[in-house]
Amino acid sequence: MGKITSRSPFAPETLAHLEPIAGVRFATAEAGIRYKGRTDLMVAVLDEGTSVAGVFTQSKTASAPVLACRKHLKKGAARLLIVNSGNANAFTGKKGREAVDITVEVGAKAANAERHEVFVASTGVIGEPLEASKFAHLIEGLVADAEPDSFEAAARAIMTTDTYPKVATRKALIGDVEVTINGFCKGAGMIAPDMATMLCFIFTDAHIAPKPLQDLLSEHVETTFNAMTVDGDTSTSDTCLLFATGDASARGQPPITKAGSKKLKAFSEALHDLMKDLAIQVAKDGEGLSKFVTFIVEGAESEAAARRIALSCANSPILKTAIAGEDPNWGRVVMAVGKSGEAADRDRLSIWFGEHCVARDGERAHEYDEATAASYMKNREIVIRIDVGVGKASSHVWTCDLTHDYVSINADYRS
Amino acid sequence: MGKITSRSPFAPETLAHLEPIAGVRFATAEAGIRYKGRTDLMVAVLDEGTSVAGVFTQSKTASAPVLACRKHLKKGAARLLIVNSGNANAFTGKKGREAVDITVEVGAKAANAERHEVFVASTGVIGEPLEASKFAHLIEGLVADAEPDSFEAAARAIMTTDTYPKVATRKALIGDVEVTINGFCKGAGMIAPDMATMLCFIFTDAHIAPKPLQDLLSEHVETTFNAMTVDGDTSTSDTCLLFATGDASARGQPPITKAGSKKLKAFSEALHDLMKDLAIQVAKDGEGLSKFVTFIVEGAESEAAARRIALSCANSPILKTAIAGEDPNWGRVVMAVGKSGEAADRDRLSIWFGEHCVARDGERAHEYDEATAASYMKNREIVIRIDVGVGKASSHVWTCDLTHDYVSINADYRS
Repeated sequence: MGKITSRSPFAPETLAHLEPIAGVRFATAEAGIRYKGRTDLMVAVLDEGTSVAGVFTQSKTASAPVLACRKHLKKGAARLLIVNSGNANAFTGKKGREAVDITVEVGAKAANAERHEVFVASTGVIGEPLEASKFAHLIEGLVADAEPDSFEAAARAIMTTDTYPKVATRKALIGDVEVTINGFCKGAGMIAPDMATMLCFIFTDAHIAPKPLQDLLSEHVETTFNAMTVDGDTSTSDTCLLFATGDASARGQPPITKAGSKKLKAFSEALHDLMKDLAIQVAKDGEGLSKFVTFIVEGAESEAAARRIALSCANSPILKTAIAGEDPNWGRVVMAVGKSGEAADRDRLSIWFGEHCVARDGERAHEYDEATAASYMKNREIVIRIDVGVGKASSHVWTCDLTHDYVSINADYRS
Repeated sequence: MGKITSRSPFAPETLAHLEPIAGVRFATAEAGIRYKGRTDLMVAVLDEGTSVAGVFTQSKTASAPVLACRKHLKKGAARLLIVNSGNANAFTGKKGREAVDITVEVGAKAANAERHEVFVASTGVIGEPLEASKFAHLIEGLVADAEPDSFEAAARAIMTTDTYPKVATRKALIGDVEVTINGFCKGAGMIAPDMATMLCFIFTDAHIAPKPLQDLLSEHVETTFNAMTVDGDTSTSDTCLLFATGDASARGQPPITKAGSKKLKAFSEALHDLMKDLAIQVAKDGEGLSKFVTFIVEGAESEAAARRIALSCANSPILKTAIAGEDPNWGRVVMAVGKSGEAADRDRLSIWFGEHCVARDGERAHEYDEATAASYMKNREIVIRIDVGVGKASSHVWTCDLTHDYVSINADYRS
C-alpha cells in the first residue's frame, strides 16, 4: 500500500444499507494473505438454481481465476463465489492454476456443488505466487457460517487501495413482483475500460436464465464500467459477475427464460442504474484524486467514436494534471480530441466547461472569460462537454484528475 | 511555465558544436510573443535550390502552421523557415490562418521567395490567438542579418518547457564527397509518437531531390521520433522538416534525384543516427523525469506489434510511477503487455530488468531476487526487455518515468 492513506474526498459519509437477498449468504475472514488486521477472504454462498453471467478483462495476460471463471461460466450455474484480496494470482504460471484448482475443489466440497458452480476472483499484487494453503482450510467454515445480512462486510473484504467500500442497491418489478438487486465492487487504480482492476459482484433474487442475464450484463457494461477510467491501465483480473438466485419465483415472479423479454424492461433499467452508480463510485475513489470529471462527447460519427474521444481526454496525463491544477486549459482538450484518431471537424469543434462555452467553431469563444473558467475549475465535480461537429452520436466517460497523490501511491505500492 | 525549473538530470554539460552548413543562415529575436527576456522567434534562410521533406502530427486538430507546411511541401522547395515559441497558433480558427498568411507573405517578400517556399512552425500554448503583428515586422531584418554559425541560438529560440537545447550533428559520404547533417529539436511534454509537441529541423548541404529526401525522412521517423513518448499525448503542432541545400554539389557531390539510390546508404545511416540522437534527447528531457527508460520488446508477431506493446508499457501511468519510485514492479509490465491488445503468450512471457531476469515462461523467475532487482532500479537509465513469446519481431521505445515534478509542471503550466 502507498504512503497516502487519506480517504477520497468523495467517500460517502454513510453507506447505503443493502437488505438481504433470498438465496445469498456471505462470510469473510482474515486469512493474512498479504494484509494484516483486516479481512481479505470472502465467500458468497448461493442457493441451488442460481444463474450466473460474467464479463471479464480483455487483457492478453488474464489471471488464472479469470480463465477459470470464463470456463465455468459456460454452464451458467453458480453455488459459490470465493474472492481474496492482497494477491491477484496473475502471472503465476502453473502454481497459479494449481491454487485455483485447490480453491475450487475445496469450495465445491464445502458447498456440496459441482466444480463448475464455483467462481473465484483474486485482486492485489501481480506475479507473487498465491498460496492456497493460506486460506483453503478456512473455506469450509465460512460456507457453514455464511449469513444473509453481510453485504458491507463482503464489500470491505475485497478492497485493495480503495478508500471506501462501494455498494449499491435497486429494486424493480418483474411482472407484479418486486425483486432486489444488490451489488458491490472494488477498484481504485489500474482502472480502465475492459475493465480494470475491478471486481464487481451483483446479486438478485430475480429468476432469470443465464442467456438473458448475460445479455443484460454485456449490454450495460459498455455504458457503465467500460465508460470509466482512472489511469487507462487495464488489469489482468477484472471480473464482473451477476448472480440471479431465482428465489423471487417463490413469490410469484414469472421466470424469464428468453433473451429480449419485455418483462425485463424495469429490471434492465434498474440494473443499468446500479452499475452506473458503482462505476461512478469507482471513479470517485480513483487513486489520489481531488476531482471527479465527466467528459461528454457529442456530435460524433458513432457512439463508439464518441466514447473513444471521451476516453482519449480521460486518459490524457497532461489534461488530467491541468484539471488537478484547476487550470481551465481547454487547449489540452483540443489536443486530446485530435489524438483520438476519430473524426472531428476542427473548425466546428466546441467545448464547454460546465455551462461556460470556452471554444466555439474551432476557436476561443468570444464570451470566454479566464476568471469565470478558472472559477469553475475550483469545483470538486467537473463536467467537460465537447461537440466534435461531424455527426449526431454522443457518449460519456467518468474519470478523475491526476495528482501528486496518484504518483505517491503508485511509486510506493509494494513497499 | 510550470513551477519546476530545474534542469533534467540528463542535460548535457556541453552541447555538441554544429559547424555551419553551406546554404543555411540563422537569426533569432526576442519578439515577446509570450516569454520575456529570451528569444522566441527564429528564421532559417536557405539557398535557392533547397529541397525539403516533412513529417507532421497525425492529430485531427492540427494547427494552422502544420496545414500550411503540408500544402507548401507539395512543391518540395524551401527558401525560408520561420518558427516562434510561446504560442502554438493551434485551434485559433480564421485568425490563426490569417496569422500564418501574414507571416508567409512577409517572409516571402523578405527572402525574395515564392510563398510555397516559406515554411512556418509554432509551439506553445494552444487556443490563444497568435498576433502576427507582434513579430512580422522583425522578419525582414532577421532575414537580412542571418548568419551561418548560429545553430545553438536557433535551437534555444524554439524551446518551451525544454530544460536544454537539443542539437546533433553527423557527417556522411555521398560518392567521395563528405556532407554534413545538423539538426535541432524541441519537446518535453505532450510528447508521443505521431509526433508530439515536437519541432525538429534538420539541415544538410547534400544535394538530394525532394522525393528521395522524403523517403529517407519518412522511413527513419518510425524508429526514432515515433518510438519515443513522454506522456502519450500527441500535440497539434508536431513538425519535422529536413532541408537539403544542395551546396555540396559545388564540391563534386553527385546530385541524387532518384528514390532508393544506393549512393545514399551512408547518408541514410547518418541521418537515422542523428534522428535517434535527437529523439533520445527529447525523452531525456521529459517533463519532470528522474529516469530515462528503454522498453525493448522481442518475440512479437511483427515490428509494429512489438512497438505497440512497448508503447503500451511506455505510456502506462502506473508502470511509469513505479519506475519513479524505484520499485521493480514487473507485474505492471505484465499488465501493460496484456492491455496492448497485441498477441502475447502468457505462459511464454519473459521479462528482464537490465540483465536480471525477473519473469520467465509466465511466472516469476526462479532466480528472481527482490534486492537485486530493487538495486537495479536505482540506476538513472533503466532498460526493460520483454519477450512475448509468439514470433521473431522486435522493436523499442524510449521514455521517462512519471514523477511528482511532471504533475507540478503540468498542473501549473499557464500560471
